[in-house]
Amino acid sequence: MTMTTGRLIGIVGLGLVGGSLGMRIRELGLGRVLGFDTDFAVTQRALERGAADETAMELNRVAEADVIIVAVPLEQTVAVAREAAGFAREDAVLTEVASVKAPIVAQLASLPRVRYVPGHPMFGTEGRGIESAGAHLPAGYPYVFTPLASTPHDAVNAMLRLAQDLGMHPVLLSPDEHDRLAAEVSHLPYLLALLLAHTSDPQAKDVAGPAFRDATRVATTPPDLMVEILRLNRVHVLAAVDRFSQGLAQMRESLVRGHIKQAVRLR
Amino acid sequence: MTMTTGRLIGIVGLGLVGGSLGMRIRELGLGRVLGFDTDFAVTQRALERGAADETAMELNRVAEADVIIVAVPLEQTVAVAREAAGFAREDAVLTEVASVKAPIVAQLASLPRVRYVPGHPMFGTEGRGIESAGAHLPAGYPYVFTPLASTPHDAVNAMLRLAQDLGMHPVLLSPDEHDRLAAEVSHLPYLLALLLAHTSDPQAKDVAGPAFRDATRVATTPPDLMVEILRLNRVHVLAAVDRFSQGLAQMRESLVRGHIKQAVRLR
Repeated sequence: MTMTTGRLIGIVGLGLVGGSLGMRIRELGLGRVLGFDTDFAVTQRALERGAADETAMELNRVAEADVIIVAVPLEQTVAVAREAAGFAREDAVLTEVASVKAPIVAQLASLPRVRYVPGHPMFGTEGRGIESAGAHLPAGYPYVFTPLASTPHDAVNAMLRLAQDLGMHPVLLSPDEHDRLAAEVSHLPYLLALLLAHTSDPQAKDVAGPAFRDATRVATTPPDLMVEILRLNRVHVLAAVDRFSQGLAQMRESLVRGHIKQAVRLR
Repeated sequence: MTMTTGRLIGIVGLGLVGGSLGMRIRELGLGRVLGFDTDFAVTQRALERGAADETAMELNRVAEADVIIVAVPLEQTVAVAREAAGFAREDAVLTEVASVKAPIVAQLASLPRVRYVPGHPMFGTEGRGIESAGAHLPAGYPYVFTPLASTPHDAVNAMLRLAQDLGMHPVLLSPDEHDRLAAEVSHLPYLLALLLAHTSDPQAKDVAGPAFRDATRVATTPPDLMVEILRLNRVHVLAAVDRFSQGLAQMRESLVRGHIKQAVRLR
């Protein structure tokens, strides 16, 4: 564990992800946090909730930061990362947390000045915004990085160490590998949960036990967040849906034939 | 809350369900618990874990019980309930916790002597046995009862009150309605979780966040428990699978056409 309390970490966007990272960084003494949000009320709540030591609404102050974490909604990531890079010190490390990497990384590959390390911390809840943030949320989850060939090793290593210090598991992948796997572990499960919640009998919730609650929890994720993700990762999502559909069809066939053990792959 | 500490509740089978009910009944002071299990080691662990005041291995002692809860594996339910009924007092209420009701109720409809109230407490975990039991597990979940036309009202009412005293939500359904809804909220989610866990890339678990963990948790349910459930409830399970598959095909079609908002049913 590296305790670099002198370091200043700028977090741009104090929502669920940015807010939680800020809380955790401060709780673990990994640096001072300068939080940015365009909503003044959010900056105040972030201070109250301990997500930042200081907040600002104007992005020019990212010039002070050693590390810049852009944690804005997916569709704003490219514009905000570019703007932040324009203000940043040349030795600053800049990362963003977009849930789909390839299309974002392609647009930011030529980001000027800063050392850019694309990342995706794989934590979250079905909630949204600073009120849903929590210092404990990142703990124990993977933190994927998809560095470019041109990304300096020391910048990647700085992010790997930050991830480890956060109690997360750093994983290196290509942007495309990330997007393929994210479709399987995140986007497909979201769609299945949504479908289960929508297609079940209205009376079903009256008899729902823990299995159903677990299975439908992520269905309450704000849909507009998911729409942009699904749009950008459509090809991988479709491949995951197709693979799942084939498996479901095989399982159905086994059930029809009365081969129950085969349906549940016992043999 | 009715505190009938004088009442003796016999729990036959001290696994996850029986053990948890025993712990909760004792914790809330709802009665004394006489626990039965054919495995001596289990009876001892049940005593240590607080799931019973007293235990026995021979079923003849259910003659002492005011309420008898048969909580054995599904395929043993009919035989054990019949045996227990043979020893029970005529005014005793007997219930069982089978996860599929219609085929079990049909076989137990003519259960002699006791007042039979079929039920299904909708709680559980992916674990199994007394070690996975917990007093808190039933709290807040539905407890379905599927009484027969011939079941005396006071016996049903006694079970409704017990469910309420346990902090569960009593729900009355026909056996067939129960089985149809259980296919939707329990058996289909299990199959989807299993498929998600089995068909995803082996590397997927390295990048899995909370959504994937939630979505695949029940996949670790001991498969042999599920095989019998799926066998007995096959018709309803197939109907649920078909409805889900149709929804998934529609969702896929929307994604293919690029109608992302339609895919997530925003409009």
